[in-house]
Amino acid sequence: MSQAAPELIASNKCFDGWLKRYKHLSPATGTEMIFAIYLPPQAQTQPVPVLYWLSGLTCTDENFMQKAGAQRIAAELGIAIVAPDTSPRGTDLPGEHDSYDFGSAAGFYVNATQEPWSAHYNMYDYVTAELPALIEQHFPVTDKRAISGHSMGGHGALICALKNPGRYASVSAFAPITNPINCPWGEKALTGYLGEDRESWKAWDSCELIANAEEKLHLLVDQGEADDFLAEQLKPEALQAACEAANHPLELRLQPGYDHSYFFIASFIEDHLRHHAKALGVS
Amino acid sequence: MSQAAPELIASNKCFDGWLKRYKHLSPATGTEMIFAIYLPPQAQTQPVPVLYWLSGLTCTDENFMQKAGAQRIAAELGIAIVAPDTSPRGTDLPGEHDSYDFGSAAGFYVNATQEPWSAHYNMYDYVTAELPALIEQHFPVTDKRAISGHSMGGHGALICALKNPGRYASVSAFAPITNPINCPWGEKALTGYLGEDRESWKAWDSCELIANAEEKLHLLVDQGEADDFLAEQLKPEALQAACEAANHPLELRLQPGYDHSYFFIASFIEDHLRHHAKALGVS
Repeated sequence: MSQAAPELIASNKCFDGWLKRYKHLSPATGTEMIFAIYLPPQAQTQPVPVLYWLSGLTCTDENFMQKAGAQRIAAELGIAIVAPDTSPRGTDLPGEHDSYDFGSAAGFYVNATQEPWSAHYNMYDYVTAELPALIEQHFPVTDKRAISGHSMGGHGALICALKNPGRYASVSAFAPITNPINCPWGEKALTGYLGEDRESWKAWDSCELIANAEEKLHLLVDQGEADDFLAEQLKPEALQAACEAANHPLELRLQPGYDHSYFFIASFIEDHLRHHAKALGVS
Repeated sequence: MSQAAPELIASNKCFDGWLKRYKHLSPATGTEMIFAIYLPPQAQTQPVPVLYWLSGLTCTDENFMQKAGAQRIAAELGIAIVAPDTSPRGTDLPGEHDSYDFGSAAGFYVNATQEPWSAHYNMYDYVTAELPALIEQHFPVTDKRAISGHSMGGHGALICALKNPGRYASVSAFAPITNPINCPWGEKALTGYLGEDRESWKAWDSCELIANAEEKLHLLVDQGEADDFLAEQLKPEALQAACEAANHPLELRLQPGYDHSYFFIASFIEDHLRHHAKALGVS
């Protein structure tokens, strides 16, 4: 499906490459969407593979690009990074802007089935299909893709990879919500977007998806041990149990003293980029 | 002068060291002040030297620590970084919060002589004397100091070093306001803080100070060529002329395509930290 070129809204040179922000009309969400793309210097002369980064609750496309320090490593390795927004914007649905963990900036990377959310909150289609097609049409990139994210976006990265065998060369996550069907953040979001039928939630839960994963991509997951959300919301032990049961390769690294912040992400993003670079064939 | 211990208000592990924010009552400003300190892992076992970072207009202690990516290199080299705020806070002087380039977040690192600013806007004394004394009393650091900064803070770093021979082992700046007595930002700030007598401004202008500098520290200055403020406010050519006239060593690097943002700072901060590390004896 051919899409109109997105409109450039900002541009900054960074580590000899370019960080650019664009807006475009999204059929998936029925709204204007903003995304950021970092094009490393190598993209000036040849197509490069792409890492998709999915951010967490309250974020936009900007947090990761401003705080993670990833551009330095992407510039060395020759990987583009695309950071979408975390929800549709510009709508004003009932309650959409009332809480930090539902509605705006909290799309949870699902396709909503419940009114009024289903008209716009289709972030899964947006990040797995529409946005990659747009990027691959309009930017100097290959069709080699990796995916990563933080917290809600770590959940997003895991489910996007697990639900789409062959689409991503590699996946990783920082402090992911591993088991949204069994934690307060997930229960709130999935009830709102998908309704009360908890069976329908399982298609969006990485622990559930791992049991039947066709493709067993190595999962690299970093989790801070001083993360305030560890026990109640993130539950790395649930992911570990699901991977053990399904013999799914998991590299879960518990990092002593680290919290849920971007300072934690910045500390380990280089390891993740090198993990992806290897799978993308650019290490 | 012994000072009470500052009060910890936030703490994040970062690159195996700790980023901490503190507040304390400042005699120099007569207000509570907040600063950030990054303590690299080496500080857990031995005192480390300190780089003071002075931020630009609109910033707080947080911008540099969140956006520059400096902790990675500081952790490697074993350098602490201290980032003060850019003005007193919590006061409500006439017009103090009306513009981005005067008053709050725009202290310009001078000691004000004009009412009502002189009671609080003594950021020069704060960053050159009070804060280093506090840091050296309460943290595991040596008395080896370096100083750097961006824009208004680049001006601050240059004048702090030039006015205090022997106090800093090294100095650098990103896109500094080199000649505040001859640019709109500087003229507005210096008129407000120091009054109409332009002769009194010269003690706070790096181009003026270089003519009589007792100590000729090598100046490392990076300047983006696509910086929107280059011609009107920053004037690297004025610094270059002053250094040439005084035979003062200047390494002015004009960086094609780079703008005034933290993406520019992030791209070159490693060079600056290595410059300081050499002078601080930790490279």
